[in-house]
Amino acid sequence: MSLAPYGPVVPTPGALGVFRPLPADAVRFAPDGLLGGWQARNIAATLPHCVDRLGTYGNLDNLRRVTGDSDAGFRGFWFADTDVHKTLEAAFWSGSAPAFIETAAALLEKAQDPDGYLNSYYQDAANRPKQWGELHFSHEMYTAGHLIQAAVAAARSAPGDAVAQQVVSVARRFADLLVQRYEQSNEVDGHPEIETALAELYRVTGHRPYLDLAARFLGNRGHGVLGEGRFGSAYYQDHEPLRAVSEVTGHVVRQLYLLAGAVDVAVETGDTALLAVAERLWDSAIDSRTYLTGGQGSRHRDEAYGDAYELPPDRAYAETCAAIASFQLGWRLLLATGNVAYADEMERVLHNAIAASTAVDGTAFFYSTPLQRRTGHDGGGENAPGHRLDWYDCACCPPNLARLMASLHTYAATGDDDGLQLHLYGTGTFTTGVHTVEVRTTYPWDEQINVTVTSDSANPWALSLRVPAWCADVRLTINGTPAPGRSQVHDGYLRLHRIWHAGDQVVLTLAMPARLVAAHPRVDAVRGAAALVRGPLVYCLEHADTTGSLFEDLELDPAAPISVAYHSSGLSPVTLRVRVRVRPLGNVALYRDLGSTAAGAATATVTAIPYFLWANREPGPMRVWIPLVPHFVPQED
Amino acid sequence: MSLAPYGPVVPTPGALGVFRPLPADAVRFAPDGLLGGWQARNIAATLPHCVDRLGTYGNLDNLRRVTGDSDAGFRGFWFADTDVHKTLEAAFWSGSAPAFIETAAALLEKAQDPDGYLNSYYQDAANRPKQWGELHFSHEMYTAGHLIQAAVAAARSAPGDAVAQQVVSVARRFADLLVQRYEQSNEVDGHPEIETALAELYRVTGHRPYLDLAARFLGNRGHGVLGEGRFGSAYYQDHEPLRAVSEVTGHVVRQLYLLAGAVDVAVETGDTALLAVAERLWDSAIDSRTYLTGGQGSRHRDEAYGDAYELPPDRAYAETCAAIASFQLGWRLLLATGNVAYADEMERVLHNAIAASTAVDGTAFFYSTPLQRRTGHDGGGENAPGHRLDWYDCACCPPNLARLMASLHTYAATGDDDGLQLHLYGTGTFTTGVHTVEVRTTYPWDEQINVTVTSDSANPWALSLRVPAWCADVRLTINGTPAPGRSQVHDGYLRLHRIWHAGDQVVLTLAMPARLVAAHPRVDAVRGAAALVRGPLVYCLEHADTTGSLFEDLELDPAAPISVAYHSSGLSPVTLRVRVRVRPLGNVALYRDLGSTAAGAATATVTAIPYFLWANREPGPMRVWIPLVPHFVPQED
Repeated sequence: MSLAPYGPVVPTPGALGVFRPLPADAVRFAPDGLLGGWQARNIAATLPHCVDRLGTYGNLDNLRRVTGDSDAGFRGFWFADTDVHKTLEAAFWSGSAPAFIETAAALLEKAQDPDGYLNSYYQDAANRPKQWGELHFSHEMYTAGHLIQAAVAAARSAPGDAVAQQVVSVARRFADLLVQRYEQSNEVDGHPEIETALAELYRVTGHRPYLDLAARFLGNRGHGVLGEGRFGSAYYQDHEPLRAVSEVTGHVVRQLYLLAGAVDVAVETGDTALLAVAERLWDSAIDSRTYLTGGQGSRHRDEAYGDAYELPPDRAYAETCAAIASFQLGWRLLLATGNVAYADEMERVLHNAIAASTAVDGTAFFYSTPLQRRTGHDGGGENAPGHRLDWYDCACCPPNLARLMASLHTYAATGDDDGLQLHLYGTGTFTTGVHTVEVRTTYPWDEQINVTVTSDSANPWALSLRVPAWCADVRLTINGTPAPGRSQVHDGYLRLHRIWHAGDQVVLTLAMPARLVAAHPRVDAVRGAAALVRGPLVYCLEHADTTGSLFEDLELDPAAPISVAYHSSGLSPVTLRVRVRVRPLGNVALYRDLGSTAAGAATATVTAIPYFLWANREPGPMRVWIPLVPHFVPQED
Repeated sequence: MSLAPYGPVVPTPGALGVFRPLPADAVRFAPDGLLGGWQARNIAATLPHCVDRLGTYGNLDNLRRVTGDSDAGFRGFWFADTDVHKTLEAAFWSGSAPAFIETAAALLEKAQDPDGYLNSYYQDAANRPKQWGELHFSHEMYTAGHLIQAAVAAARSAPGDAVAQQVVSVARRFADLLVQRYEQSNEVDGHPEIETALAELYRVTGHRPYLDLAARFLGNRGHGVLGEGRFGSAYYQDHEPLRAVSEVTGHVVRQLYLLAGAVDVAVETGDTALLAVAERLWDSAIDSRTYLTGGQGSRHRDEAYGDAYELPPDRAYAETCAAIASFQLGWRLLLATGNVAYADEMERVLHNAIAASTAVDGTAFFYSTPLQRRTGHDGGGENAPGHRLDWYDCACCPPNLARLMASLHTYAATGDDDGLQLHLYGTGTFTTGVHTVEVRTTYPWDEQINVTVTSDSANPWALSLRVPAWCADVRLTINGTPAPGRSQVHDGYLRLHRIWHAGDQVVLTLAMPARLVAAHPRVDAVRGAAALVRGPLVYCLEHADTTGSLFEDLELDPAAPISVAYHSSGLSPVTLRVRVRVRPLGNVALYRDLGSTAAGAATATVTAIPYFLWANREPGPMRVWIPLVPHFVPQED
């Protein structure tokens, strides 16, 4: 077990890698910044909310049925235990909710079978005969994987703590059972997660069979052992061996969790070919199957990617868990390769798809994060609600958000032999243990990031500051003296290599004018439309600001200037305002002869808010992609 | 039982209605026209194919299990009997497949329980306890409805025939059981069909309790008795009482079958308010939830309508059965109201969505009829294949096509006290019994429709010819003399009221220039694109004609002329050709800053084929909506 507190993903010293994670206590976001604020809200609101719902929705009672302490019927999905495991993981990462930790740890230990099996659904007398018998469907190893991830969090966040050790012991007993049962098997679970979990457990314990089993599961995939199922074998990435696959496919969360495991195994075993597979599949997702918000998953039916460039904004499934999985995979690839593109994507998905998942009060959530809600949308149903729900029958997302936010600070910075790298900007302190800086900024609302070195060093070292690809104008001063900006950026980082003294001041300015962004012409669903973007934030129009028929009748003139408005109170510190043309076309038939047209004569000024803040006011339509003034429209009578 | 052969939907003499159906033998399409060709192919290929598949896919064996004549396991979905019933209906309407009729009739009679119950799934010993106990899900009345529809076809097509009578008796025993069981009940089946079936059985038998039960089922809907289910109560139109609903919703086939029943009951009971409900809901579908092809259903997940203006071409579900249901509902509303809009829509959906469902050889089918197939589409899966499959696990569509095509001629013309109305144009003969005409035309390939009166009459009567709304230029000659065209059109019909003599010649010319059509601006999914249309036919680009990257890189200039090419052989008698601009943009990033652009410099000429003929050559991408030359695109480096 590692002895210093760490966050998720800590490769062993011999692993492949360019950047190294910092210890968990080496990074702290201040609670008054955006990222630190999310973390504080998570501890104050989201995590207690999750703990509460595990009680009211029966997840804990399901385990108590196994221990004989409850006679309630089983409730929820057959993988309902994972909500307990993920909440427990969140509690460990955040160092909060000790009563829940104690309760859950004791319950899990008591519910565990003597051989190490633990799954309240399949421990039910009626379901025991089906144990291990329907892996395409059962999520048994997926559930085990989340138990193990909770144990990894316990081990890394509270080394030496007795309750943490209790959870680690439970998870190891289950992991040992898996090793015993599957180390010679060609079987595999329908829902990946166990692979990354076992690799992480290996990192925590040094017990090699866990890593070997993770590698075996990766190799077992793609040989059709799961069958075709309802959606075809590609649904669970069993259509082709992982090393042969060239494009992401199927159920998005499964695909991304699988790739997280692939990266973990690749770096621990020095398997550069496997690492290249993960990079290739990542590229296929980012190049043609990712929403502007970083969300992934275009199809509701099978929660799947869909074809290249199939990216409907209204029917975006873009599951919250997929966004979280993208962030987690990006981090693994960033550590392994040092490629800034992964950090850029982490920033995008965090500030848009992930951030949009949680209501401002921290206790309501989107499962799906669409880029458009239509006028008249019924707002019903878990799959495409018009507003955030306080819980879900399939509640995978809320506790997943809780565990991500609880560990968010650990994803912000890294170290290497040469110094410190800052990837995500927020007010806080960051140290490699040797080199330390303080950051003050209101990013992403403002452009300026103030970094103060607070450690002295006799030797030169590099302070590396990520310069996002969206930023075309980088300005820098060091101790008040202008220094070259963008020209000093190498591989996406401003690498400031010098002898730093405590008190040295670096001011990085990442110019963030409001911009209009278009999608690739093959993205048919948003042809003739543009999105408002500023810095890492995607903006949207919401009915609360753009009322009545104006919301439907407006057209954006790309030449119209966009103004940035700052607010000291209200929903968003920054909004964008732009003049639009207005062309009422509600009475045109659904299909008419095409004709050329003059731009609408009337104009109006509309306000856009950050996408992640939508649906915090009265319910109504929303859109990220705004129609451009067209040259051809259906002709009116 | 009515004594003259008739087709589907024959309101009783006292029913509400403007147009009356003609006897089935009063209308005959010649087999060398498009419509008559489809009917001939149906008898020669599709129907025998269906009969064959009922054997190989176990549908008949499922019934033989009930009679003790098979020990095979139950196969297929729990409503697999409906495929037998629909094929039997098709056989009766077409007057073919007598051996199958005899086999099926005897099998159904033998399998029927003494009390009249007949459903091979729920007659299985293991499932008997569930009979009538899970109506939200069981499709028991839906299955009964299709049995009744087969009996209606038997009664109308072969009055007096012993085997037909056998089927009628089986159906009546089941219908009597339903009356006995449900005439005081507030229950309802999750999948409508029984309502229209019972109303039709009433029409055939004169037995009023069938109609009353149909009306009762309509009234029972919308009170939540079905529960929320997986997709919410609107999925099966149980969210609100039918008379209060203002928009179509939920599962499209269920919605349309329900409305068919509503019209049948409304006209038989003189319930004009209920008829108005059906008209209102039809409008809500046509005005904002119907594809250019007449297909309906935008969502795969729940086979549902989706929001207004949510009409993605690539993920169009547009189930074949929904298109058929739209055609059948349109016919009912046309008879009831005389409103030409229903006939126009029948023409559109028939020539596009329905026609596209069947391969040119008549033995492969689309379940879903999308308006776009993307490059790289995997082509797998029943729900969105890139080519037609020869059968489906859920095989509702192929026998539904067979029954529609078998009775297609009966939907072409009507009569009223004043004469004859022609709604669908094809070479053939049409008679009210008093007034008779012959039609010769190659419509929709050519514009000219030649009508020869072949009956003499001392009194004036009206020959009414539908003028489709898409036609802006109508020309007419009577016995060689030009007559006023469009100005003579009243309510969509050219109503030629005079004393007609045998040999009188009417030549109607419906000008059909190729046109570019745009969708309502709120149809975000096809913004900045147009579709090629000629006459009633929607055209598409297919990879077989537009190879390589050109398919992806082309942009349509609305000013470019479109030429019409005629072919004496090959896939289509008519193709369209248009010059396009070519702008290779494959290397642009998925999202980039928006910039203005000049039109692509290169040009090419591309060929479009009728949509209904796509996927009859090598598999590849297809699109109906063609991108227009844009003014703003993502900027390249």
